[in-house]
Amino acid sequence: MQVLITGGAGFLGQRLARRLLERGTLRDADGEARPIERLVLLDVVEAEGFDDPRVVPLAGDFCDPDCLATALHDGTGAIFHLAAVVSGQAEAEFDLGMRVNLDGSWQLLERCRKLGHRPRVIFTSSVAVYGGDLPDVVRDHTALTPRSSYGTQKAIAELLLVEFHRRGFVDGRVLRLPTVSVRPGRPNAAASSFASGVIREPLNGLESVCPVDPATRLWLLSPRRAIDCLLHGHEVEDVALGDRRTINLPGVTVTAREMVSTLEAIAGREIAARVRWEPDPAIETIVGSWPGAWETGRAETLGFAGDADFAAIVRAYIEDDLPAAGRG
Amino acid sequence: MQVLITGGAGFLGQRLARRLLERGTLRDADGEARPIERLVLLDVVEAEGFDDPRVVPLAGDFCDPDCLATALHDGTGAIFHLAAVVSGQAEAEFDLGMRVNLDGSWQLLERCRKLGHRPRVIFTSSVAVYGGDLPDVVRDHTALTPRSSYGTQKAIAELLLVEFHRRGFVDGRVLRLPTVSVRPGRPNAAASSFASGVIREPLNGLESVCPVDPATRLWLLSPRRAIDCLLHGHEVEDVALGDRRTINLPGVTVTAREMVSTLEAIAGREIAARVRWEPDPAIETIVGSWPGAWETGRAETLGFAGDADFAAIVRAYIEDDLPAAGRG
Repeated sequence: MQVLITGGAGFLGQRLARRLLERGTLRDADGEARPIERLVLLDVVEAEGFDDPRVVPLAGDFCDPDCLATALHDGTGAIFHLAAVVSGQAEAEFDLGMRVNLDGSWQLLERCRKLGHRPRVIFTSSVAVYGGDLPDVVRDHTALTPRSSYGTQKAIAELLLVEFHRRGFVDGRVLRLPTVSVRPGRPNAAASSFASGVIREPLNGLESVCPVDPATRLWLLSPRRAIDCLLHGHEVEDVALGDRRTINLPGVTVTAREMVSTLEAIAGREIAARVRWEPDPAIETIVGSWPGAWETGRAETLGFAGDADFAAIVRAYIEDDLPAAGRG
Repeated sequence: MQVLITGGAGFLGQRLARRLLERGTLRDADGEARPIERLVLLDVVEAEGFDDPRVVPLAGDFCDPDCLATALHDGTGAIFHLAAVVSGQAEAEFDLGMRVNLDGSWQLLERCRKLGHRPRVIFTSSVAVYGGDLPDVVRDHTALTPRSSYGTQKAIAELLLVEFHRRGFVDGRVLRLPTVSVRPGRPNAAASSFASGVIREPLNGLESVCPVDPATRLWLLSPRRAIDCLLHGHEVEDVALGDRRTINLPGVTVTAREMVSTLEAIAGREIAARVRWEPDPAIETIVGSWPGAWETGRAETLGFAGDADFAAIVRAYIEDDLPAAGRG
């Protein structure tokens, strides 16, 4: 079994890679566990810190046909397609977002089609495919009405993946992720970057700005559970999904205000006071268009699990990432 | 006011062109009626039969940048984007459908964006954007879950149009058309071709095959009303649509069996007996995935009107088209 992760040097990509290496196997199309012989980590920068002969870091642009041909060939049994231009950047740089998030995903699927061996493709989509006048809880049958370039590009890539699956070119699975929080590391250009920052920065002794109204609802999943879901998205049986290839993953609903009060309950008033409320209309518009919750019954029936509550998410960050940050 | 119709030599394109020429004006962005000075009919074959100095027939491929640059420039105020590879052909020729229905629509929108004058774009979408396990009546908020390549390509082009509208590159309007029946002329490669054929052929003295189960529900709109809706889709005010740019047009629900019994009631037993029932699984799969009805309240509030019933649709064909066919 050879595996490709696009966005393999990114935060989720690296963490997924480590879990795959620990685990050592993935199921093939017949449901049999096969050893992972080769794990290609494709990204615009070279993935670092892997001392494992199975890992092949590959620096390149997956939108470039030559690069894609190197990364993805007829021995590639599983593809985790995580690479994307994030929401804030896709809004600011329209052409870049369209090229990477839409055309790039299309070319990746075309490559699979040309190869003809029907690899398994796990594609990460997002809350951002929803938008506008939404019900309180989004259902599986709620229309995709994105209100951002990123959300539009993800919605289109979803449709492409489902179509390429229907035509028999790939075994496709779309996992719609809640906003992943708490991400370690530095803020990024995602409109939702604050959803990690308001917890991470204070715990690391830094000030943090929350750019949305305290009442804004967020729909969150910890990195730990996100990786579990990605793996399960590969392992879940083809027939269990039937022709419904898109799964809304479990999350927890929390307001921005509750995020900070949870931080206070866990880490104390002084740390929580490091959050400053400073609305940013551009971010509020994007994040405010996302759903605060969606139905998760189908995901749970299929064996996907989220976090118990937001306190569990904060504790997962403290356990998994805070020691590595060397502070707290 | 200069106007472009893509698919301008097609059935709906030609009929729309005639109505525009008769009418003579379209509203501009300020709501003022402006004379139509130039009407470009772009299609793969040259539009014929127009003896009007305003008409510019243009034979070419709208996916070709040079052709598109000739057809669409900064004087083009309104674009009716009707050109498409139809459902049966898009299923049979995957690359062609992707190129024309998806990439072509994208390039057309990109051309508008580069020009920068925010033309009005009326895009025709279809029942085929829906599919799978649908409710009895599709609502405005029902997810697009196409089960055909054509439906996928239309759903993606819809998302693109709405996004290009949101970004301010076009004044975009998506009209989801019921299946248009009764089309004059010959059968085509649309999976729904029979929805016209089972009425048209018998009335013209020919045998016709109905390839779906008699209980299959269809959602229909006459050509006459379809053209009314296309025009109204241009004329309806920008602010009336708000950020909901997609409109499910009114239709009538009828089963295949009821279509033939209506024909019998209007034209007699002998004519209706010219329909032969001969199921075709490929067509049943595609057409059976389409909704038999959707909510039309919003369209009606916005001033769009459909047909009274299927008998009215048959009579519209007899009045508008049967004399020209030279039979009956």
